[in-house]
Amino acid sequence: MALELYHHGSSVCAAKVRLVLAEKDVPWQGRYLDILAGEHHTPEYLKLNPKAVVPTLVHDGRVIRESSVISEYIDDVFPGPDLKPRDPFVLANMRLWTKLVDEEVHPSTRPVTYVATHRHTIMKGSPEEVEKHIAGDPDPVWRERKRGWIYQGFDAPDVRIAIRFFDKLLGDMEAALDGSVWLTGDEYTLADGALTPYLNRLEMLSLSPMWSNRPNVARWFDQVKARASFEPALFGCLPDDLKSAMIENGLKAWPEYKKILEEN
Amino acid sequence: MALELYHHGSSVCAAKVRLVLAEKDVPWQGRYLDILAGEHHTPEYLKLNPKAVVPTLVHDGRVIRESSVISEYIDDVFPGPDLKPRDPFVLANMRLWTKLVDEEVHPSTRPVTYVATHRHTIMKGSPEEVEKHIAGDPDPVWRERKRGWIYQGFDAPDVRIAIRFFDKLLGDMEAALDGSVWLTGDEYTLADGALTPYLNRLEMLSLSPMWSNRPNVARWFDQVKARASFEPALFGCLPDDLKSAMIENGLKAWPEYKKILEEN
Repeated sequence: MALELYHHGSSVCAAKVRLVLAEKDVPWQGRYLDILAGEHHTPEYLKLNPKAVVPTLVHDGRVIRESSVISEYIDDVFPGPDLKPRDPFVLANMRLWTKLVDEEVHPSTRPVTYVATHRHTIMKGSPEEVEKHIAGDPDPVWRERKRGWIYQGFDAPDVRIAIRFFDKLLGDMEAALDGSVWLTGDEYTLADGALTPYLNRLEMLSLSPMWSNRPNVARWFDQVKARASFEPALFGCLPDDLKSAMIENGLKAWPEYKKILEEN
Repeated sequence: MALELYHHGSSVCAAKVRLVLAEKDVPWQGRYLDILAGEHHTPEYLKLNPKAVVPTLVHDGRVIRESSVISEYIDDVFPGPDLKPRDPFVLANMRLWTKLVDEEVHPSTRPVTYVATHRHTIMKGSPEEVEKHIAGDPDPVWRERKRGWIYQGFDAPDVRIAIRFFDKLLGDMEAALDGSVWLTGDEYTLADGALTPYLNRLEMLSLSPMWSNRPNVARWFDQVKARASFEPALFGCLPDDLKSAMIENGLKAWPEYKKILEEN
């Protein structure tokens, strides 16, 4: 059996899949892509993943893409603890969470991270270099959003929407975890796994005060961190300088995000 | 057993679920919402579906939301033909299609439909009424996109992206259907069902010339239309005036969309 994962350290989606592999205790071989060196844009990788994103799983020569599809696949084909509930109604509930992660949590992570930290690195360049960076995004909709993140910072309208989305998400998690060990009941499932890298990102960005008055979320995240899967999947591949930049810039971002949250 | 579907006639997502119910031959009771009368914004419906969208399925009092989650649920709990492949790799492939429908096909349908037809209805109002209509959208990102659709029409950058996305989608379908009866192999699955309402929307908008030189897609859509599920699920609830407005406005839109497609 050959199981290869194309991944890198700072991708939340790659961390999600590493977490599932660790929970199922499946041995795998890493194919680490150096994103800064553009290794995700080589013709070889584009054949595996035309969108040039990580992760990609290759199982006995068969290619599986998209972290949430990969996660269900791993749970379907490998032995180990079931990460999907057997009851179809609870399973539907689990899929509502994993779908929310794909469609709203993931896209909201981009502006929040960008404004808190990546922006500072880009703004070190000359005005021409900043414009060149913006023009380099092939998607005109994301290009205009990125322009807002760089020049308007915390005042960009979609950044406000994103941080408020996280506030609502944490409120919904708090309610779901009321009297429930995990998000969908007594068993740890792919729903808990899918949200883990995003809560971890918020914590890395020093935004954990967002759940200081949400005891169920705090308790859930402690449970997540106590699992053997957490440390290797989340931090085993993360460069130290990226981690410390997120923490330091995040500390400066929190008062700004706090202001937005208190406006409501 | 009580199975109720909250739905309406023009929703592609509701049509997707009606199609699955017809394929499984499951009896259900319709709860038709009059969208123009705002019945999706009543406190009763918001309790079932806080996003105020259709469809919502209620099965013996248990509420299931989101058309792709509902589709898997119906296939999981009811007898009838399996609409999910048994092989986990083919299943992953099926989920790539249903995920693509949720994340890219559905959002691309909105600008293409809006510019082709809805815009003409809105532009009949005074400049103040048009502005009021735009201001009524609670999401500032969609609000600005809508402004573009109304005032820039076919020149709005995201409309060009959306119509080109459909061209790429049809190309990908053509390739997947090469030597394959259905999208993922010999069996009809939720992937075929999920794409059906969107191809039907393109056809209703008189955009079927987009697959005139794609014989596999044309053959697949003929197969889809020949199934007993198609007519009742797609047209059983559609108001005639909406259907004819789409066709007539679509005929005028096609030369504009054709121009965009030929630019590449």
